[in-house]
Amino acid sequence: MSNRIKILVTNDDGITAPGIAALVEVAKEFGDILVVAPDSPQSGQGHAITIYDPIRLKKSDQFPGIEAYECSGTPVDCVKLAKNVILNDVKPDLCISGINHGGNAGVNIIYSGTMSAAMEASIEGIPSIGFSNRNFASDADFTASKFYAKKIIQAVLENELVETKLLNVNIPNLPLEEIKGIKVCTQANAMWVEDYVEGEDPRGGKYYWLAGKFVDRDPDNHGGDVRALTTGYVSVVPSMHDLTKFEAIPELKYMEEL
Amino acid sequence: MSNRIKILVTNDDGITAPGIAALVEVAKEFGDILVVAPDSPQSGQGHAITIYDPIRLKKSDQFPGIEAYECSGTPVDCVKLAKNVILNDVKPDLCISGINHGGNAGVNIIYSGTMSAAMEASIEGIPSIGFSNRNFASDADFTASKFYAKKIIQAVLENELVETKLLNVNIPNLPLEEIKGIKVCTQANAMWVEDYVEGEDPRGGKYYWLAGKFVDRDPDNHGGDVRALTTGYVSVVPSMHDLTKFEAIPELKYMEEL
Repeated sequence: MSNRIKILVTNDDGITAPGIAALVEVAKEFGDILVVAPDSPQSGQGHAITIYDPIRLKKSDQFPGIEAYECSGTPVDCVKLAKNVILNDVKPDLCISGINHGGNAGVNIIYSGTMSAAMEASIEGIPSIGFSNRNFASDADFTASKFYAKKIIQAVLENELVETKLLNVNIPNLPLEEIKGIKVCTQANAMWVEDYVEGEDPRGGKYYWLAGKFVDRDPDNHGGDVRALTTGYVSVVPSMHDLTKFEAIPELKYMEEL
Repeated sequence: MSNRIKILVTNDDGITAPGIAALVEVAKEFGDILVVAPDSPQSGQGHAITIYDPIRLKKSDQFPGIEAYECSGTPVDCVKLAKNVILNDVKPDLCISGINHGGNAGVNIIYSGTMSAAMEASIEGIPSIGFSNRNFASDADFTASKFYAKKIIQAVLENELVETKLLNVNIPNLPLEEIKGIKVCTQANAMWVEDYVEGEDPRGGKYYWLAGKFVDRDPDNHGGDVRALTTGYVSVVPSMHDLTKFEAIPELKYMEEL
C-alpha cells in the first residue's frame, strides 16, 4: 500500500493521444496514477454512457511503469469502470481529464467528453479537473498546457475545493511566454454553431456531416471564459451538475394549480 | 404557409417508440408538427453529437399526415439537423422531447438523450420540454403522461417561459386517478449508482455490462423532483445549460495569483 495520493487520469481523445501523455507526465509527480481512457477518439460524446452493449477493458502498456487500461466505452464509461471495477469503489483523491486537443470553453462543456468524464467523478465528490488546449492539432504543443496544469493541480491538492468539485480549465493556443496568467471565470455564452456539409456517398446515398464555427454570442461579457482566452489568459470555470434554474421556480409555481 | 405554430418533436427511444407516438398525438392539437427522431434507441446518449461520421436523414411515414424524419444520429443531432437543414434556421415555436420510456429525474438529466435534445433546442432560445414516464416498459401506459403533457404544453404556450427555456417533466408510474397533481421542483441529488455485471463472450473475452440501481442520496429533500414523484406528483424542474458554479468563484480567486 502506498501513502501517496491516487490520481485517476482519463480523456476523450483516446489513450494514444499526446494530450493524455502530457497530463500523465505532469500528474505522476503528485501521486500514483491510474489511467483509464478510451481505446478510440470519443470527442463530442458528452455525458453518453454505454447501455446496450458490453464494454471491454484491456491492460495497456502505453505509459511505462504506470497502471493503465484502454476501454471500449465513452469517457464517462471509463470513469464509471475505474471507480466501480478497477478501484472497487475506493475513490481516487483526484480525477483529471485531458489534456484535450481543442478548447472546451463556453457551452462546449456540455458536448465535451473531457469535461463529462471529469463531471462524472465530481458527482461522487471527487475533486476533478478537465484540461483543454485550444490547439486542436494532433501534434499540438503542450508546453504551456503542462505548465499551467501543474500549477492548478498543485493548487487544488493544497487548497481543498469546497464550493465545487469540478473545474473547467482551458489554455490558450499561445506560447507559454505570451500567456498572461490565470483568470477565474464564468461559462461564456459561446458555442459551436452548426452548419452541415451535404454530400453523396459512393452508392448515391445522401449524407450530412457536422461542420460549423465557434461563435461568442456575448463578446462584451468580460467575466466569461472565452474572453479570458482570447485576451491571453488561462480560464478556470468552477462548474457543477445541478442544472436547476432556481430563479425560474417562482414563474412556474402556477403550474401546481393546473 | 400556415399561421399555426411549429412544434419540433423528438425523443431518444427512437421514432417507432410508443412514447413519441403519444407525444405526437397530444401535440398535433396545438400546431404543425415536425418529427425528427433517431432511427434506433439512443438512451443514455447524453449530449453526444456525431462528429466522425456522416449522418443520414430519411423521410418517415411513421405518423400519417405528419412531416417526419428518421435520423441515424443522436437525439442532439436530430435537433441540430431539424434546425439547420430541415427548418433552414427558422426556429420552431416549441420543442418537445419524449415521452421517454423511463424516468429522467435527479442527476439523470445529464445522461438523458431525451433531456439533452430538449436542452439543445433551449440553447437557441426555443421553449423546450422533455417528458419522461417513470414506466420504462416498451408497452408502458401513457394515459397519465398524455394528460399531463397536454396540460403543461398548453400552459407553456399560454404563459411565456421567461427565466428558463427548459423544463424537465417526469410523470410517476401510476394510473391517472392516483396522481395528485404537479409540483415545481429542484433537481434531486438522486442518480443511478452503477454496478457492472462481468461476463465472458462466446470467444472467451471478458466484458462488463452496466447495471445499477437508482439511489436518492438526499431523501429528506422535500423540494426535489424524486420526492415529488415518489409521493404521487408530476415533477417539473426548470433547467439550464449554464453549468457555472457561481458560489465557488470567490474560493478560487487565489488562482489568479499563481
